[in-house]
Amino acid sequence: MTIEHYALSPLGPQDVRIAVQAVGICASDVHYLRKGRIADFIVTAPMVIGHESAGEVVAVGEAVTTLAVGDRVAMEPGIACQRCKPCKTGAYNLCPDMKFFATPPVHGSLAHFVHHPADLCFPLPPSLSYEDGAMCEPLAVGVYACTKANIRPGTRVLITGAGPIGLVTLLSARAFGASEIVITDVDERRLAVAAGAAPGVKTLCVAGKTPEEVLGMIGGPASVDVTMDCAGFESTVEVALEATTNGGKVLLIGMGCSTRSMNVPLLPAAIREVDLLGSFRYRNCYPTCLALIESGRVDVKKLITHRVDLSGEGEFTAEAVMKGFALSEKGGDVVKVMFKL
Amino acid sequence: MTIEHYALSPLGPQDVRIAVQAVGICASDVHYLRKGRIADFIVTAPMVIGHESAGEVVAVGEAVTTLAVGDRVAMEPGIACQRCKPCKTGAYNLCPDMKFFATPPVHGSLAHFVHHPADLCFPLPPSLSYEDGAMCEPLAVGVYACTKANIRPGTRVLITGAGPIGLVTLLSARAFGASEIVITDVDERRLAVAAGAAPGVKTLCVAGKTPEEVLGMIGGPASVDVTMDCAGFESTVEVALEATTNGGKVLLIGMGCSTRSMNVPLLPAAIREVDLLGSFRYRNCYPTCLALIESGRVDVKKLITHRVDLSGEGEFTAEAVMKGFALSEKGGDVVKVMFKL
Amino acid sequence: MTIEHYALSPLGPQDVRIAVQAVGICASDVHYLRKGRIADFIVTAPMVIGHESAGEVVAVGEAVTTLAVGDRVAMEPGIACQRCKPCKTGAYNLCPDMKFFATPPVHGSLAHFVHHPADLCFPLPPSLSYEDGAMCEPLAVGVYACTKANIRPGTRVLITGAGPIGLVTLLSARAFGASEIVITDVDERRLAVAAGAAPGVKTLCVAGKTPEEVLGMIGGPASVDVTMDCAGFESTVEVALEATTNGGKVLLIGMGCSTRSMNVPLLPAAIREVDLLGSFRYRNCYPTCLALIESGRVDVKKLITHRVDLSGEGEFTAEAVMKGFALSEKGGDVVKVMFKL
Amino acid sequence: MTIEHYALSPLGPQDVRIAVQAVGICASDVHYLRKGRIADFIVTAPMVIGHESAGEVVAVGEAVTTLAVGDRVAMEPGIACQRCKPCKTGAYNLCPDMKFFATPPVHGSLAHFVHHPADLCFPLPPSLSYEDGAMCEPLAVGVYACTKANIRPGTRVLITGAGPIGLVTLLSARAFGASEIVITDVDERRLAVAAGAAPGVKTLCVAGKTPEEVLGMIGGPASVDVTMDCAGFESTVEVALEATTNGGKVLLIGMGCSTRSMNVPLLPAAIREVDLLGSFRYRNCYPTCLALIESGRVDVKKLITHRVDLSGEGEFTAEAVMKGFALSEKGGDVVKVMFKL
Repeated sequence: MTIEHYALSPLGPQDVRIAVQAVGICASDVHYLRKGRIADFIVTAPMVIGHESAGEVVAVGEAVTTLAVGDRVAMEPGIACQRCKPCKTGAYNLCPDMKFFATPPVHGSLAHFVHHPADLCFPLPPSLSYEDGAMCEPLAVGVYACTKANIRPGTRVLITGAGPIGLVTLLSARAFGASEIVITDVDERRLAVAAGAAPGVKTLCVAGKTPEEVLGMIGGPASVDVTMDCAGFESTVEVALEATTNGGKVLLIGMGCSTRSMNVPLLPAAIREVDLLGSFRYRNCYPTCLALIESGRVDVKKLITHRVDLSGEGEFTAEAVMKGFALSEKGGDVVKVMFKL
Repeated sequence: MTIEHYALSPLGPQDVRIAVQAVGICASDVHYLRKGRIADFIVTAPMVIGHESAGEVVAVGEAVTTLAVGDRVAMEPGIACQRCKPCKTGAYNLCPDMKFFATPPVHGSLAHFVHHPADLCFPLPPSLSYEDGAMCEPLAVGVYACTKANIRPGTRVLITGAGPIGLVTLLSARAFGASEIVITDVDERRLAVAAGAAPGVKTLCVAGKTPEEVLGMIGGPASVDVTMDCAGFESTVEVALEATTNGGKVLLIGMGCSTRSMNVPLLPAAIREVDLLGSFRYRNCYPTCLALIESGRVDVKKLITHRVDLSGEGEFTAEAVMKGFALSEKGGDVVKVMFKL
Repeated sequence: MTIEHYALSPLGPQDVRIAVQAVGICASDVHYLRKGRIADFIVTAPMVIGHESAGEVVAVGEAVTTLAVGDRVAMEPGIACQRCKPCKTGAYNLCPDMKFFATPPVHGSLAHFVHHPADLCFPLPPSLSYEDGAMCEPLAVGVYACTKANIRPGTRVLITGAGPIGLVTLLSARAFGASEIVITDVDERRLAVAAGAAPGVKTLCVAGKTPEEVLGMIGGPASVDVTMDCAGFESTVEVALEATTNGGKVLLIGMGCSTRSMNVPLLPAAIREVDLLGSFRYRNCYPTCLALIESGRVDVKKLITHRVDLSGEGEFTAEAVMKGFALSEKGGDVVKVMFKL
Repeated sequence: MTIEHYALSPLGPQDVRIAVQAVGICASDVHYLRKGRIADFIVTAPMVIGHESAGEVVAVGEAVTTLAVGDRVAMEPGIACQRCKPCKTGAYNLCPDMKFFATPPVHGSLAHFVHHPADLCFPLPPSLSYEDGAMCEPLAVGVYACTKANIRPGTRVLITGAGPIGLVTLLSARAFGASEIVITDVDERRLAVAAGAAPGVKTLCVAGKTPEEVLGMIGGPASVDVTMDCAGFESTVEVALEATTNGGKVLLIGMGCSTRSMNVPLLPAAIREVDLLGSFRYRNCYPTCLALIESGRVDVKKLITHRVDLSGEGEFTAEAVMKGFALSEKGGDVVKVMFKL
C-alpha cells in the first residue's frame, strides 16, 4: 500500500473530472488489499482501491450537457460496455466487460481526481453530504435486491447476516414497505447496530444455533415470503430455503466470501417452488438511493461508524489509509469507515 | 329505503355468522340508492346496501378451522366462483360470477347479521378497531392499484382526484415508498384532507385549468412514472397520458361515474408506450391492508370524517341511515361516513 | 396389488361421474407400488393408483352447467382447496391441502368410475382420443415449465434428461418456439425417442462424461438461456448452472427421485444471476395442452410406446395391470405405457 | 426525389462500413416522400430514405472485434444514446435521442454505402439472403409486439389489419405458438396474402361491418386473450377493447397514420382490466428474427410481392426508385417492394 501519483486517462467527450471528496471502505477493498484476489478477479499490478465515492465536478467533456463545473455528485462505479446483450436488455450489472472501480485491473476512486462518464455521476440534492453520496454505493446493493425480490407492503422478510450488506438490505426493505422484518446474526454488536438503524425490526442472535433452532426462532418453516441471505454460509442458505413460503424467493446477496460449492437442501425447496435468485451489485438504483436519503426514509449516517480525515495538508498518507483499513477489518460494531479527502 | 327483517341463507360449512359492528358508506351505495343502477348493474328488488364492513364472529360452519366465535374480523365483500379462468389464475376480482355485497342482486352488509365465507374474514390485530377493519375495503382499492402499478421507492406518482378513492390511493402510494407524489383536484377542501392525511405530499388545485396548464403545474410532459386517474374525466385521462413518461403507466381507478366512451389522445401515448391499465376493485389485499394499518404506515382514521351511531336501542332507523347518506353525498370535506352498529 | 370394489364418495353438486377410458402409468405410480412412498407422501392404506386419465361423463352433479352426459374429457388430477393464499393468488399447484389422484391418501383414477369436479374435466376436441386426453397430464408438466421459464422464439434451451418428463419438456419447448434445443441423456435409446419425437433437435449422449466435458459438448459455459433439469443429479444441476448464460434460468423439474440435499456450485451462478427455479406439477395448463395436441404442434402419440388393454370382459385383472407396470419399469425405449379400460 | 452523392460521416472506432445490398420500402418511407412528415417528425432538408436493409461489411472501425470484412449482415436501423433512463433499463426503443435511419433529420440506408455501429449489424446465417436480412426490420415489429403481449401456446389472438405490419404480426404470432389466430381487414386481396402466408389462420373480411357485427363474426365479446390492432382506427380499437377477455391485452402497433385523439369505449374495458399497451418499433429482436427465418418457422419471402433491381450499371436512377414507390403505394396485394442494390 503506497500513495503514488499516476496519470489519468484523457477526459473523453462524455466524461467529467471529479475532485473526490468522500470514499467509503468496503470489505472487497480489504480483500484485495490483504489477499490480492476475489474469486477470479486477481490483482497483478498496482491498483487504486475504493469504489464508494462522491465528489465535485471540476471539468466536463465537450459533449456533456447534463453536468457543470461545481456540481456535487455521487459516482456509480461500474462502466458497462453498452453493446452486449445484458447491456442492451437493461441488465448491465451482468455485462462481462464491465469496468468497475477497484475491480482488477481497473483503478478505483480513492484518489484526488478521477475521470468518469457523466451519465454515471448523479447530482446530490442540496441537503445531502458527500458522505451520503458515497453511501449510495452500498445502499444500491440493498435497493437492487429489494427491487429484484419485489419487496412491498405485505411482504414478510428474513435477512440473514447483519454486516454492511445485511444492514443496507435492512434499510432498503423497510423503505420498500416490508410488513415484517427479522434479521439474524451471530454477533450481538451488529444486531445492536441493526436495531438502532431500523427501530421496530426484530433482531435475533443465532450464535451456536442449528438451522432447525433458527427456524423455530423465526416462526417455523415456510413463514416468510422472501429471505435475503447476506451471509452466504451453507447454514444460512439452508435456513433461507426452509424459512421461505411456497412460491417465495431466496436472494443470495453479497456472497463474495462464500465457498464455490454448497451442500444445501434444494429438492424440498424446488418442490415448493421456493426460487433461488442471485443478486449481483445493482443497476439503475442511484436515483432511488438519492431519493430515499433525501426524503429521510433511509438514514445512511447510522451506518457510518468511523471516519478518517485525509483532507488536511499532508494527511493523505499510507499510514492514515491503513488506519482506516485496520478499523474496517475489525467488524463487529465497526460498520462503515469513511475517508474524507 | 326501509329497515326490514330478512332471512339469512343457511350457514354453509365453510361460512361464519358475523354480528356486524361497523359499515362505511361508499359512493356506489349512494348511487344505487339514488339512481338504482351503476353501469349494467341494476337494482330490481329490495337490496341491503353496504360493503365496507367489520364485525364479530358469532357462529362458525362445521368445516371452519381458521376462526372461532368471538373473533373480530374485517370482511372482504366479494365471493368469487373459484372455478372460472380468472379465479384459477388468481385474478378473482375479474370473475364474471362474482357475488359482491350490495352489487345487485346480492344483499350488502348494513345489517345486524350476515353469513360470509370464513376465508374472506380476516382477523383484526388487537390494536385495530372495527372501523379500521371496515376501512380495509376502500384502502384495498388503493393497495391493489399500487401493486398493479408496481409503485416503489424511485417511482414518481401523479394522482388525479382527491375523493375517497384518490385518498386511499394516496395513502397507499406513500406506504409503497413512492419518491414523489402530486395529487390534483378541483376542490380545495378535498386537497386539504389530502395534505392532512399525507404530510409532505404536493397538492394542486386545478379548478378551471386546461390540461396544458395542469401539465405545466406538475412539471411538464413525461414528468412522472405512474399516473393514477381517480377522477375519470376526459380531461384527467388526457393529463394522465401526457404527464406520464416513456414506458410509464396510467391506471384507471374507481371510474364508476365516467362516461362509457372517451375522446382522448391515445396515439402519442402509444408511441411512447405509456400503457393504460384498468384497476378494478382488488384481490388478495386484505392482509396487506391490515398490516399497513397495524404498523402505522397508513392511518385510515384520517379519512373517517363523520360517524353515525346506530348501535343504541331503537337507533337503527331509516332516518338515521338516511342521515348518513345525506352527509356522504355532500362531498367536499366529507370523506368517509361510518356507521356504528 | 389387487383389483377391488370400493365405494365412491357421493357425487357433489359441482362434480361429474366419469367412466374412465384411458390411464397412463407414471414413474410415481411405480414408486408408490414398489416403495410405498415418495418423500413425505407415504401409502398407509390400500390406494387406487393412476392419475393420467381421460374418460366419458356418465352423470353430472346438480349444479354443473358446463358438461353433459356423453362428453369426452381429460381429467386434471389435483383438487386444490381454493381458500389458501397459493390458491387465491393462482398458484394452486402449491396448495398445501391439494388432493391429487394417487398421492396418498387420495385414491387415483385407474378404476372404472371416478367422481371429479367438473371444472377439472376438460372436453376433448373431436379429433382427440382418450389416450391424447390422458397424455395431457404429463404434457402439462412440460407446458408449465416452459411457461414459467418464459420459453419463446429466440430462447436457447438445454434439457438434461430424456425420460418421460424430459420428453414432454422437449415437445413443449419446441411448441413454445425455442430457437435451439439440446437434450442430453446417458441412454442412447431414450435419445433416439427424443430424436424421433422432435426432428431437428440436437441429442447428446453424455454417458461417462464429466460436467466439464458435457459443457464442452453443448457449446461451453453460459451458452444457453434456459436449462431444464429433468434428471435431478448433482452433475446435471452443475451442468445446468454453468451452461446457462448471465441472467438466465435453471428449472428443476420432476425431481422426485433426487436426494434431499445437493452439493452444487451455487456461488458462481448467483454472481451471474443464473436463477434456480422449482417447477412443481402445473397449473392452468390443460386447455393449452389440448390446443397443442389438436393443432398438431405436439404429437403425444410418439411417446406412447406400449399399450395394455384392460377393456375386454374379465381383462381388468391384477396380472394385466402388473404387466403394464413391469413394462413401465424397464425404462430405456419404454416411455409411456397406456392402459385402455 | 433525386439520386445524389453525399459524404459519409467518419467511420467511428465501433462502426462498420456496409455496402448495402437490399432495401425494402415501408409505408413510412412513402409518407415522408409524399407528405414530408409523420406526426412531429418533419423533413426540412434532403434526406436519404430507407431503413429496412442488409449488406456486406467492407470496412471495420479500429475497435470492432465482432465483425470482419466480407460478413453479410442485417442492419438494425436505430442508434440509441445508451445514456438515458430508457436505454439503461433496456427500453432503448423509447430513447428520446434515437437516431433512426430515415427518420428526419437522420439519413436512411437506400444508398450504396452506410456507416453503422457494429453492435447493430447482425451476421446473416449462410442460408439467409440479403432480402431475408432486410425483412428482419418489419418482422421485428411483429416479434416485439408478440413478446410484449406474451403470446404463447394457449393464447387466442385477434389481429385487426392485414397490411405489412398486420402480416408480420401474424407470422410472429404463429411462430410464438398462438393457439387460435383471427385476422381481419376490409380488403380481400390482403386477406388472401395472409391466408397464403399463414395457412390455417382464420381470415375475415369486415368491409362495411359495424363493430358489433365484427364482434359477432369473431366469436363475441371477451372471446380472445390478446388483440393486436395493426390498423389504428376508432372502429378497430373499439373492436379490440370489446373482443378481448377480462384481464387480456390490446396492443396498438404501427399506428403512424391514426388521428391523434380517438373516441373509444375505455370505461368498460378498464372495468374488465383489458389493458391498452403501445408497441413502438422493437428492441433486442434481430437475433430472434434471424433464428425464426433460419429455422423456417417464419417465411418472410411470402411477403415480398415485388422487386426492383437497381444493381445493374446505371440502374440506380430516380425513375427506378420512384417505380418502386409507386408500386408500394398501391396497397392491396402489393405488400413489400424490395430494392436490390
